[in-house]
Amino acid sequence: MVGGGEGAYIGGIHRYASRLDDQYELVAGAFDISAEKGRAFAGSVGVASNRAYGSYLELIEGERARADKVDIVSICTPNHTHFPIAKALIEAGFDIICEKPMTTTLEDAVSLHQLARSSGCFVGVTYTYSGYPLVHEARALVAQGVIGTVRVVQVEYPLEWMATAIEAAGNTQAEWRTDPKRSGRGGSIGDIGTHAYHLAAFVSGLKLDALCADLATFVPGRSLDDNAHVMLRYEGGARGLLWSSQVAVGHSNGLRLRITGDKGSLAWAQEQPNELLHTPLGRAPATIKRGRDDVSDAARVRTRTPPGHPEGYIEAFANLYGGFAEAIRARLDNRQVGPLGRDIPVAYDGLKGVAFVDAVVDSFERGSVWVKPEFV
Amino acid sequence: MVGGGEGAYIGGIHRYASRLDDQYELVAGAFDISAEKGRAFAGSVGVASNRAYGSYLELIEGERARADKVDIVSICTPNHTHFPIAKALIEAGFDIICEKPMTTTLEDAVSLHQLARSSGCFVGVTYTYSGYPLVHEARALVAQGVIGTVRVVQVEYPLEWMATAIEAAGNTQAEWRTDPKRSGRGGSIGDIGTHAYHLAAFVSGLKLDALCADLATFVPGRSLDDNAHVMLRYEGGARGLLWSSQVAVGHSNGLRLRITGDKGSLAWAQEQPNELLHTPLGRAPATIKRGRDDVSDAARVRTRTPPGHPEGYIEAFANLYGGFAEAIRARLDNRQVGPLGRDIPVAYDGLKGVAFVDAVVDSFERGSVWVKPEFV
Amino acid sequence: MVGGGEGAYIGGIHRYASRLDDQYELVAGAFDISAEKGRAFAGSVGVASNRAYGSYLELIEGERARADKVDIVSICTPNHTHFPIAKALIEAGFDIICEKPMTTTLEDAVSLHQLARSSGCFVGVTYTYSGYPLVHEARALVAQGVIGTVRVVQVEYPLEWMATAIEAAGNTQAEWRTDPKRSGRGGSIGDIGTHAYHLAAFVSGLKLDALCADLATFVPGRSLDDNAHVMLRYEGGARGLLWSSQVAVGHSNGLRLRITGDKGSLAWAQEQPNELLHTPLGRAPATIKRGRDDVSDAARVRTRTPPGHPEGYIEAFANLYGGFAEAIRARLDNRQVGPLGRDIPVAYDGLKGVAFVDAVVDSFERGSVWVKPEFV
Amino acid sequence: MVGGGEGAYIGGIHRYASRLDDQYELVAGAFDISAEKGRAFAGSVGVASNRAYGSYLELIEGERARADKVDIVSICTPNHTHFPIAKALIEAGFDIICEKPMTTTLEDAVSLHQLARSSGCFVGVTYTYSGYPLVHEARALVAQGVIGTVRVVQVEYPLEWMATAIEAAGNTQAEWRTDPKRSGRGGSIGDIGTHAYHLAAFVSGLKLDALCADLATFVPGRSLDDNAHVMLRYEGGARGLLWSSQVAVGHSNGLRLRITGDKGSLAWAQEQPNELLHTPLGRAPATIKRGRDDVSDAARVRTRTPPGHPEGYIEAFANLYGGFAEAIRARLDNRQVGPLGRDIPVAYDGLKGVAFVDAVVDSFERGSVWVKPEFV
Repeated sequence: MVGGGEGAYIGGIHRYASRLDDQYELVAGAFDISAEKGRAFAGSVGVASNRAYGSYLELIEGERARADKVDIVSICTPNHTHFPIAKALIEAGFDIICEKPMTTTLEDAVSLHQLARSSGCFVGVTYTYSGYPLVHEARALVAQGVIGTVRVVQVEYPLEWMATAIEAAGNTQAEWRTDPKRSGRGGSIGDIGTHAYHLAAFVSGLKLDALCADLATFVPGRSLDDNAHVMLRYEGGARGLLWSSQVAVGHSNGLRLRITGDKGSLAWAQEQPNELLHTPLGRAPATIKRGRDDVSDAARVRTRTPPGHPEGYIEAFANLYGGFAEAIRARLDNRQVGPLGRDIPVAYDGLKGVAFVDAVVDSFERGSVWVKPEFV
Repeated sequence: MVGGGEGAYIGGIHRYASRLDDQYELVAGAFDISAEKGRAFAGSVGVASNRAYGSYLELIEGERARADKVDIVSICTPNHTHFPIAKALIEAGFDIICEKPMTTTLEDAVSLHQLARSSGCFVGVTYTYSGYPLVHEARALVAQGVIGTVRVVQVEYPLEWMATAIEAAGNTQAEWRTDPKRSGRGGSIGDIGTHAYHLAAFVSGLKLDALCADLATFVPGRSLDDNAHVMLRYEGGARGLLWSSQVAVGHSNGLRLRITGDKGSLAWAQEQPNELLHTPLGRAPATIKRGRDDVSDAARVRTRTPPGHPEGYIEAFANLYGGFAEAIRARLDNRQVGPLGRDIPVAYDGLKGVAFVDAVVDSFERGSVWVKPEFV
Repeated sequence: MVGGGEGAYIGGIHRYASRLDDQYELVAGAFDISAEKGRAFAGSVGVASNRAYGSYLELIEGERARADKVDIVSICTPNHTHFPIAKALIEAGFDIICEKPMTTTLEDAVSLHQLARSSGCFVGVTYTYSGYPLVHEARALVAQGVIGTVRVVQVEYPLEWMATAIEAAGNTQAEWRTDPKRSGRGGSIGDIGTHAYHLAAFVSGLKLDALCADLATFVPGRSLDDNAHVMLRYEGGARGLLWSSQVAVGHSNGLRLRITGDKGSLAWAQEQPNELLHTPLGRAPATIKRGRDDVSDAARVRTRTPPGHPEGYIEAFANLYGGFAEAIRARLDNRQVGPLGRDIPVAYDGLKGVAFVDAVVDSFERGSVWVKPEFV
Repeated sequence: MVGGGEGAYIGGIHRYASRLDDQYELVAGAFDISAEKGRAFAGSVGVASNRAYGSYLELIEGERARADKVDIVSICTPNHTHFPIAKALIEAGFDIICEKPMTTTLEDAVSLHQLARSSGCFVGVTYTYSGYPLVHEARALVAQGVIGTVRVVQVEYPLEWMATAIEAAGNTQAEWRTDPKRSGRGGSIGDIGTHAYHLAAFVSGLKLDALCADLATFVPGRSLDDNAHVMLRYEGGARGLLWSSQVAVGHSNGLRLRITGDKGSLAWAQEQPNELLHTPLGRAPATIKRGRDDVSDAARVRTRTPPGHPEGYIEAFANLYGGFAEAIRARLDNRQVGPLGRDIPVAYDGLKGVAFVDAVVDSFERGSVWVKPEFV
């Protein structure tokens, strides 16, 4: 693991996710930008001192030399460092799991995606919400035509936690998120809007044709957007609306997706992830529960407990880790990938996410014109 | 009453609303475009045969001549007839209650609004949802600064009932709604989008600075939009998103408003109108119940039952009727209007609604450019 | 109307309910125990002074003598006066609508029920909640066997408003409710438990075989129960639990019913009355919405607005009034009763309610033994 | 681990729970009543073949002899085997984690509890639901007096999955649950009613004074109850109702607790475990979210993710495992137990659960009389 040391929220999540299904063991890491802090932290997560590295470069050097070198490296650092770290790791032949956004510039994203293809290394990108079993169920239902031709997509990702200038009050999580140098061109749109965009595309199976965006910055002192409105046009004629906000008081982590087709609709909300609402045209709304027997394989392999025993964010994250492991094992075993390793977010998803942010900011800067992302 | 005869949905609602509080008596009407049918219908709602008119012109002529002529006339006809009927009634000196949209062209709306002002006649426009007590409560809370400076407005009005071409299958309600000659330039945006726009402005107290719209028509054979996405910019910097849809499977009458300010947020949904969610910044969300003692006067005077005894759509409509009665009585008595007669939708609200539809269609037709409505 | 004057909550509800469907006109009343206050009040609800009576006896005398005497009299007085007023009215040949509980003693209830039968007068008893359309839909679904053989009934009616000794602070509504002389033997069980009992029997179609009860009085100074727990055994083997409480903080008017059969279950809550949850065995829960086309006749005739346009308590109450009117008209016309006049609460329902309270108090006083009510 | 092999639901949960926080390593097991199957299974969960035992007796013998013997043994077998296995393990000096009910007879429970005390071994009992952070928060709020003196407790645990005779169709989970020899005297009341009882006592802090029960068996062929109704009287005067059901169609795992005091109420439902509803007397209901900063220490130490990132059943279970680990470490280190190790379910809780089932069945068999459990 690179990054994810003391006080880093997402690093802990990666560790929970990796442990849950007993598919990973954390044996090495460069956990902190401060070599000293990183080494100190290593012990607290059971990493031996001789594999507690002071930097990702040291990690690459050290692990490369070992017979029992790590199989895969998770990158849990701030956005702007994803690219150099990922690049170095891939060039050294390591499979990686990279936090999103994959890079802070489209150029880097293109470059990394190409490197992934040419190297044959595995690059997983943690679009976490596609790990939820009912998200896969929704995707399967759309693909099976259960809601007919998709017409309208409504997706939103509102949050409260940055509604005040907490970055100025010492919140390091908020600090780099509001700094264009470390975050890239997008504020809320890059941090959470990309999750919303990925989720909508993942479930609907649609590719974006054009977008038209309006960005706003409400908290004084910020230079990046903390609220984004985007109108979407998908190939084939479907339309969508996307809202991301870091100033939405009352919303803890309110990612929510609604898709309407000509035969039915689906609705799912991340904070109640164990239920998927399906309304067939002209009929009563029905609640599909996670864990039932009659769901798709894609949902079933991502489920650990029966209905009524809630699963949540850590389990969804663990499903990504499980999928990454399956993909890598299948490559090693030279066999077909099992259902857990299919439909998982990889380098091209990362690239699409960065291209989306770029297109949104372009649209806004040019007066809210329709823009097509370079990669969809 | 003009219109509202056999099979007309909204006419029945007007009658429930007028009866509930014992402020109105239905004594005359021209209930149908067919004089014969209209007269036949009159008896079924207790109107004497000598006041059952064959047309609105007959009604005007007949009532004008009576000492006990009607005090006010409700117009419950399809959109394109609102203007000539309203104009004739006002010119004859009658107060009126007019269904929305007030007219089908901006020109007519301007003209009617001026006529209302110059004549001194009362013109109420049935923006029904502003009749709900908790909508008034939300408005009062915003006005009191409880959620601080408004930043983001999310409003939506999705419906399922026109998801198929029911207009081609003999549904008369859908038929005129999909006919530009009778509906005006807007499809979903005129029929329901105007309700959403009015509600958002009513509660937030904000005036629109510009909008940018994308319209779509999903059901084959339609010439008007059945889905609309609109990005909003309010004076002072607040932003908004508006979604109206007649093809949103699963939504019966899903008008919903969420407003976020820098100190808190409010959320209200028409299908659960007895609850208003208020989240103060950094605190637990609290559910304000209709009927409690600690609400504003504006909410209290629109409430008939204690908390837990649900009130609904008819009661909200009756609140408009009550407000119109109060406004007229105050004028007659030459006294100040009481709280029930304040903040009620009148001709200028009707004009703003028509201007909004015009601006939305203009924006879309010009490629989704930012447009400022002529009246806000 | 007898009772229902200034400050009387339920009298106002009766008036809304009677007006909504234009089936009743309020023309006479003895509105207050104080003759003077009652007469003063009459004018405020449009009753002519010569029909504003000082007492129910005066009303009987006055109306009897008129050619245009009232058709029906509503009794909206405290519990202990229901019997003498109802008796006198029936003996004078008037149809009546009586608030529940019908009487405060079982003896009186038996007597009144017999009088109703022998006189042929109509006696409606306002078990309000059976006026809701989806309650009728639930009853129809059970009767049609949709949930199979009923096994378990869970019904509850919790309220917050008497959680403190408001009767000692001048709340007249609470005052007579906590006074055994005016309320009868039951506190919460008589006031609201009887509603719950009626609703459960109404929907399930089951007759009680025995009950076992535990009463409690939490607020100091009270002599009647303010919380009741009752275990139910129905004929045929179904079991039930009933909870009524006047001290349940957080509940405004929390009447809620859940019924499980061997093929499915139904759930309905009074505060969200426009939805009925139906779960078929082994399938996804489906939400039946009031106003849809595919509901039973019993539900349809009690519906005024389409799905998504919420109806509530006043509409449910109006449905009772409509049903009473239909029953009386059918008798006058010597024709079969239409669907609105069927399955409405009458004298025998009133009798069963009083017998239930009696059995509950008996069970508790005898140490929570199983008791069968005298009438079921 | 003893039990928990192929096809055993709860064994897998124990393994997830033990792995999540990296406090346990699974190194030995006797996973199946079939020695062969158990050994075969061991490899699939990473247990070395020399520690894959054929029975719990072999496990005891084998581990005892090792220097690196296991620290603690989880018992995940059917109910009737808990006692002999637990006894043998404790007598051999092992700390244990035992599934509930701890034993199938009160005699055995008393014996095991005494053995636990005399031996000094740690005995954790998996009353899973007390592992949820907001359950601890609720307990803390009650203890702090936030809802005042507790008056009424409503607890229920309805399930659908045994609504038909699945035990006759080869469901092994249902088979032993419906067999008195393996389950003990209680059916639904033992399987899930004990969870409800424990939860209610845990949060309210109240001890039971007496109970009065009605049991029913709906599915033909069963000899144990599949539905239980219990009226509760707590010391100090609070009252309660408990419902457990294995035939409640529509409920996946519907454990739900509501507690009312004289100053407020709390409500929590296991299927939405990230929210706790708190209504202060006379005020608006407020939703307390798991993960917020302003909760008690007891809740905070059981939380891994911020608000809006749902945690669920596995995390709750892991909190028990974490608590057990902390309790044992504190004993080993001879230090005070930290907050994660406090208020965890141990042998006395297991004993109380068995005593509760005994009292319920006694009450029912004696005609629903009031019975006081032997241990509360």
